[in-house]
Formats: sequence, C-alpha cells, structure tokens
Amino acid sequence: MKKLVNDPSDYVDEMLDGMLAAYPDRLRRLDGTKVLVRSDAPVDGKVGVVSGGGSGHEPTHAGYIGDGMLDGAAAGEVFTSPTANELNEMVQACDAGEGVLCVVKNYEGDVMNFDTAGEMAEMEDVEVAQVVVDDDVAVEDSLYTSGRRGVCGTILVHKAVGAKAAAGASLEEVQAVGEKVVENVGTMGVALTSCVTPEKGEPTFDLGEEELELGIGIHGEPGTERAEMMSADEVAEHLTEKVLEDLDIESGEEVVTIVNGMGGTPQSELFIVNRKVQEILDGKGVETWDAWVGDYMTSLDMMGCSVTVCRVDDELKDLLNADADTPALKR
Amino acid sequence: MKKLVNDPSDYVDEMLDGMLAAYPDRLRRLDGTKVLVRSDAPVDGKVGVVSGGGSGHEPTHAGYIGDGMLDGAAAGEVFTSPTANELNEMVQACDAGEGVLCVVKNYEGDVMNFDTAGEMAEMEDVEVAQVVVDDDVAVEDSLYTSGRRGVCGTILVHKAVGAKAAAGASLEEVQAVGEKVVENVGTMGVALTSCVTPEKGEPTFDLGEEELELGIGIHGEPGTERAEMMSADEVAEHLTEKVLEDLDIESGEEVVTIVNGMGGTPQSELFIVNRKVQEILDGKGVETWDAWVGDYMTSLDMMGCSVTVCRVDDELKDLLNADADTPALKR
Repeated sequence: MKKLVNDPSDYVDEMLDGMLAAYPDRLRRLDGTKVLVRSDAPVDGKVGVVSGGGSGHEPTHAGYIGDGMLDGAAAGEVFTSPTANELNEMVQACDAGEGVLCVVKNYEGDVMNFDTAGEMAEMEDVEVAQVVVDDDVAVEDSLYTSGRRGVCGTILVHKAVGAKAAAGASLEEVQAVGEKVVENVGTMGVALTSCVTPEKGEPTFDLGEEELELGIGIHGEPGTERAEMMSADEVAEHLTEKVLEDLDIESGEEVVTIVNGMGGTPQSELFIVNRKVQEILDGKGVETWDAWVGDYMTSLDMMGCSVTVCRVDDELKDLLNADADTPALKR
Repeated sequence: MKKLVNDPSDYVDEMLDGMLAAYPDRLRRLDGTKVLVRSDAPVDGKVGVVSGGGSGHEPTHAGYIGDGMLDGAAAGEVFTSPTANELNEMVQACDAGEGVLCVVKNYEGDVMNFDTAGEMAEMEDVEVAQVVVDDDVAVEDSLYTSGRRGVCGTILVHKAVGAKAAAGASLEEVQAVGEKVVENVGTMGVALTSCVTPEKGEPTFDLGEEELELGIGIHGEPGTERAEMMSADEVAEHLTEKVLEDLDIESGEEVVTIVNGMGGTPQSELFIVNRKVQEILDGKGVETWDAWVGDYMTSLDMMGCSVTVCRVDDELKDLLNADADTPALKR
C-alpha cells in the first residue's frame, strides 16, 4: 500500500497526535477520546460551535478549530461517525453556558450520534442546537443518507456560524445563520480515481484509465454517472451548471465559489478548473464575490474535485470575511 | 491521462488565469508573460522580492505573492525555467527604486536565467541582488544542478526576506537575511510514486508497488536510494536524521520544521509523519519553535513528502512570525 502510515488501525490516533504536535498552543485533546478542542475551550461569553464526522476528509474538521470557526471537532475512524459519547463530551467541553451549535454533515450515522449526544448534553443542562448540511446536489438519497449528502459546503457553514458566534450572537441566531448557508449552497463532485482507505489498502471502486465518475461523494460511494474522461473545462461545466441549476442562481446575484481538491489532485489543476468556473459565472452575469481554491473537504488520496457555489447577501459576506485563525483557514 | 487539464500545452497559461480569476484584487499578470505580480507592484519605499522557476510546484511560487512575502513570481513551463526576458520584466515591474532581491532555487537553468535577467535589469539602473537556495541535503550534485538542489526550504526564505523587506530594510539587509536562512536550512524528500507531467502523461520514473525512492527532487529526477516500502515512522526517521546530521543541530537549539506534501499525499499522512518528526526532535532535546504541515512545494501529483528543518534565532523567529497575506500563506 502506497501510504505514509504505520499500523492502519492507529491512523486516526496518530494523525490527531501529529496535529497536536504541530499546534500545541492552539489545540488540546479530550482525554481518552478522538476529540480536539481549542486549548482555551470553553470560551467565555460565546456560543460553542462544534462539528465532527468520519476521518479521511482532512483538513475537515479539526483543521478549522480556532478563533472565528470551530471550538471543537470529533474525529471518527476513517469514513465512520464518532460515537455519541465522544460527541457528548465535546459538546460539554465547548459549552461556556451560552449553548452549543453542532454542525452535522447529513449522513445517517452522524445525524443519529449527534442527536443522541445532544440529548445526553441537554440532560446535563447544556442547550444544544443543530444545523444539518446537505449541499451535494448530485443525489437525492445515497448509500449512507436519507436526503442529500453533506460535503464541501460544510466549510462555509463552519465559517459563517463561527463568525456569528465570535460576534456574541445567541445560539438561535448562530443556528439561523447556519440554516441560511445551507439553503443557499450547493456542491457537485467528480472523481478521477477512487480513494484508498488505510485499512483496506485497495481502491474502494474501480475506474478505468479513460473514465471518471460524476456526482461522487466523499467516501468512495458511487457517483451518479460514469463517463468517459473529460477535459478540465468539460468537468467544470458539468459540475457548475448542475449546481447553478439546483440553486436557481440568476444573473446579478453574488456568490462565493469553492473549487475543492479531493486530496490527490494538485493545486495547478484546481486553478485550471477555477478558470472555467469563473468564465461560466461571468457569462451568466453572476458575480463571484470570493473564490476559494484548495483542499478543504477531501476524500483521502482521491483524485478529483468538487465545485461549490453559495449565494451570499451582505450578512453572509460579512461573516465569511470576518477574522478567523485556524490551522487550515485564516482571514 | 488522469488529470483535470485541457490541452497540456495550455497548462501553465490556464493555471495562471485560474489564479487571477481567484485573486483578481491581489494579482495581475504582466502582459504577454507568465509573470504574476502584486496588483500594487512596485510597492513604494520597499525592496522588491521576487522568485520564480518551473511550474508544477504549486503553490510555489505565485501562491506566495502578497504583503510580507513576494512581489512577483515568474512561472516557466512545467519543470522548466522561466526565460531571462520574463525574469527581467518581473524584476523591473517590482522595483520601486529600492532594488530587487531574486530568490533562486539552485537549478542550472534558473540560475543562468536569473543571472542574465539581473544583468539586463541593472542596465536599466535597477539594483539587483540574489539569494540562491540549495537546501536539499540528499545530493551534492544532481541531474539539473551543480551543487545541491533548492527545494522546500525556499518557502522559509520567501517568508523571511519578504518580512524583512516589508519592514523597510535595505537590499543588502534583505539579502543577508536570505543567506542566513540558506545557511541554516536543510530538506530531504521521499517519493512513493512518480509525478506525471501533463505533456508526457506517464510516470517520469517507475517505482514498484512495494518500493519508495529516498532523496528525491521535485522534478521526478532520481533519488539517492531506492528502498523497500517503509512505515511512516521509518520514513520520518530517515528524512529527519539525515537533515539534522547535515545541519549539525544540537540539543537546546530551536528550529522550524516543515512536513511538506508532494502534491498527491493527503494531509492526514503528513500529520502522521509530523508526529514522528516531533518525537525525534523531542528525544534529542531540540525545540520546535514552529511546525508547518501542508503542501508548500509540490511535484505535481507525486505521492510523498519532504522534511525541512531550519535553525532559528530571534531575528528569524520574528521574521517568520511577521504578518503575511498571500493566497497560500497567512500569518
């Protein structure tokens, strides 16, 4: 297996230790868990904001812990939800008495465990609210979800709710901003190769040398369509058109875009895709207020990318632009 | 070929356009060239700092253009030096009358073309100085170099000289800081797979499923040793020990480390490597003042990583910690 790993069963543990070793002043690990929190959590006078989910999507989620974004992130094993117990511990550790917002990607395991954790924390008198992100426009239901999957749009939710919480808003207000992003964001992805999980050591699905898979998720689950290899422009067109159509974005509207790498694709290729994405938006009279390009929500070593579009108003622009200081994102 | 590209001969052009489309307020392209500069270049009252080299190492170099780092970056074709003419245009565009420092990775083509460009610019009364980076401890001479290759340590040079220039130092002072980093930095890399160039569409070298290549450069040139696949800890040990030995780092000294991804390796694996790198340094009583983990100097889609160690004193710590605001690095 071509990976920089030791025993695959230590993958997540060692990755978290490696993060702590890189950011010892910023992060701490809750004893006996795979939960990382801000070293100063809970932060007085602020709603706590937490997220979590299976590992393999780095820098999601722990990379977004810090001022203006997340207070805590729970890591499950690769592509596996964290346990309700660990999520509960995280919620409690991040509550400073103002309540805690959980940002949940829409997968059955995550939703169930965050629900249970919320109930557990509420029994300890922590006020808990949730935002469930389901931005993948490729599928209505999927292998691991009822309804749409939560993918790269989640990062914009982290950013917006984190900024709102940092500004001193109430739990209800922070949640409302999260819902606003969810209502206005869509994502569509493509894979050129399957990811390889450390435990299995082999591709999760087979894809020929001249094929790609459209509408892919972030766990190696099947996409919606297998197609012959396309050019970067064709890929950009396919993904962008599908998202714009779903969101019903019209000329004159302002958006944030993300061209997100799936982990194995070099940045140069993401910029080539971004070039076409912006050309398409220009052609439609849609104004890109900000364009993000990079690896934000990955699928291990998968080659491919996703395109996210989010309609923004003045409130969202302020929040997305607000200061943030995390390992993976600074503003 | 499994790449998000259009016509491979447009690769660099379209990548640069995609960067411009992402950062229209920060960057501009010099007409008819593959040179990007700060949109406000030349910056009054400041020494200009520029770099450049073959493409395929993104975010190097253009990703580091901005406040506190580079004023301009010239992109050659993939793994090919920019021309002396384009380098000269860049130097002139970034001169505000205080002179321009060129940060050059030690490859014969780059050194020759930067030399020529410097002479051309001097004929136009621009004061030009150079820092040549040769941090790769793997080889004394290589396929493309006399002496050692310039690799990931270059980013620390960009950061330090950029900060020094932003603080208003003279050309001579800015150059001196660059030399100081070069004297104190070392890097060693490993490849798990070859990179695939867009033009060729095939691996540059063959590496078996159970092999890795140590002492690799960033152009798919041969390493120093082919070995059986190792664990992440063994890789970390091999790379770190070699660098520490070369730099003669002793207990009690302070360093900055970079665990750098080569483009196709997920961040999770880089953190697993970082865990061991920091354990090794701890064990030797070397103090890590700051640990960087991510894709800073890549080789297209190559899987693998490099470990950089740089001895720091108070001056370098201040400069590495100073504000920077670039697409790829913020402080």
